[in-house]
Amino acid sequence: MKEPRWKEAEFEEIEYKPTSIKELLVEMKNISELMVYLAYSAILFNNSDIAEEVRYLEVHIEKLNYQMRIMAMLAARTKEDAEKLSGILQMAEAAKMISGAAGDIVKLLSVKLKHPLLPRLLKESDEMIRKMVVEGESPAVGRSLPELHVASETGVRIVALRRGKRWMYNPKNITLEKGDVAIGVGPEEGLEHLDKFLKGKIRVLE
Amino acid sequence: MKEPRWKEAEFEEIEYKPTSIKELLVEMKNISELMVYLAYSAILFNNSDIAEEVRYLEVHIEKLNYQMRIMAMLAARTKEDAEKLSGILQMAEAAKMISGAAGDIVKLLSVKLKHPLLPRLLKESDEMIRKMVVEGESPAVGRSLPELHVASETGVRIVALRRGKRWMYNPKNITLEKGDVAIGVGPEEGLEHLDKFLKGKIRVLE
Repeated sequence: MKEPRWKEAEFEEIEYKPTSIKELLVEMKNISELMVYLAYSAILFNNSDIAEEVRYLEVHIEKLNYQMRIMAMLAARTKEDAEKLSGILQMAEAAKMISGAAGDIVKLLSVKLKHPLLPRLLKESDEMIRKMVVEGESPAVGRSLPELHVASETGVRIVALRRGKRWMYNPKNITLEKGDVAIGVGPEEGLEHLDKFLKGKIRVLE
Repeated sequence: MKEPRWKEAEFEEIEYKPTSIKELLVEMKNISELMVYLAYSAILFNNSDIAEEVRYLEVHIEKLNYQMRIMAMLAARTKEDAEKLSGILQMAEAAKMISGAAGDIVKLLSVKLKHPLLPRLLKESDEMIRKMVVEGESPAVGRSLPELHVASETGVRIVALRRGKRWMYNPKNITLEKGDVAIGVGPEEGLEHLDKFLKGKIRVLE
């Protein structure tokens, strides 16, 4: 049996990418906010794929936090440096707390509900959420979301796009690559259609 | 010494307003998302006023959660009802977790930082956050935000507006009343100017 992806992540080596502390912090804040959105979505739509992304991101945030502490300690030369950096570490701690709460939320899903909440909760009762992977055979590879008219053809909004370990929050100008993971929100048939297109099972998105 | 407002709230009687479970749940989700935003802002801007709002909202969410449990138990007649309602209670639990994390974040502020993070962290280094109260003498009373041209005159966005215990997330069409609490984000001088206007110390906002 293949381990779920978030569990693999836990045992990977920490990578030291040449990022700045500022970049790291902005990334942690953005990811934790995305996690809140995804965690609520996982519960609303009773969707364990989305829950898995949240657990993966929780591990990812832990790593970023570790990397942040190392960078902060290396950067501190004077007492004033250290005081400034303690603010940074506070913020990183904050992101970890939000991330932890989002992770706890998706644990609630371990009891599979018979009745997804969304249709009764929200007006747009035909909306669903879905995780989709861009396959190598798809005509989407090498093209951007606006170029494909995803929104107008399917009614689906792509709320986040992941390439490897990197989440992209403004996926509009990004050219799709094989292996990209897209999280879409929209009508069920639009999602179904888009999923087939991203898998390369259909050649035209209309 | 006056107790802080969130502490008063803890000892207030629970009110049973005639709301539906759906309304309650949407309110809990919205409030918890607002709390994440406010908690991050409190840390970024090193702002204890905003931190106090977060603590207040944390108590408020507890009350909504209690009210939710009562309503859910009263509403369940059959096993199927109860199964549906258990999803609702999961979601309420989720909102409580996020709220708790936001509350924990602002506890980090108890060590007052010498150096607010924001100017170094974000490009728009002239942005600040500020809690402002509409006083009875202000020319703002009885008028809406677009009518006052708040954004164009001061550069300030009102991210949330509270009337008594009720937060409004889309404050655009709301006519301001005495005692309304506005949370504004924008340039420091714009916030200063708006604050004076809402206090009634200046009569024109331009």
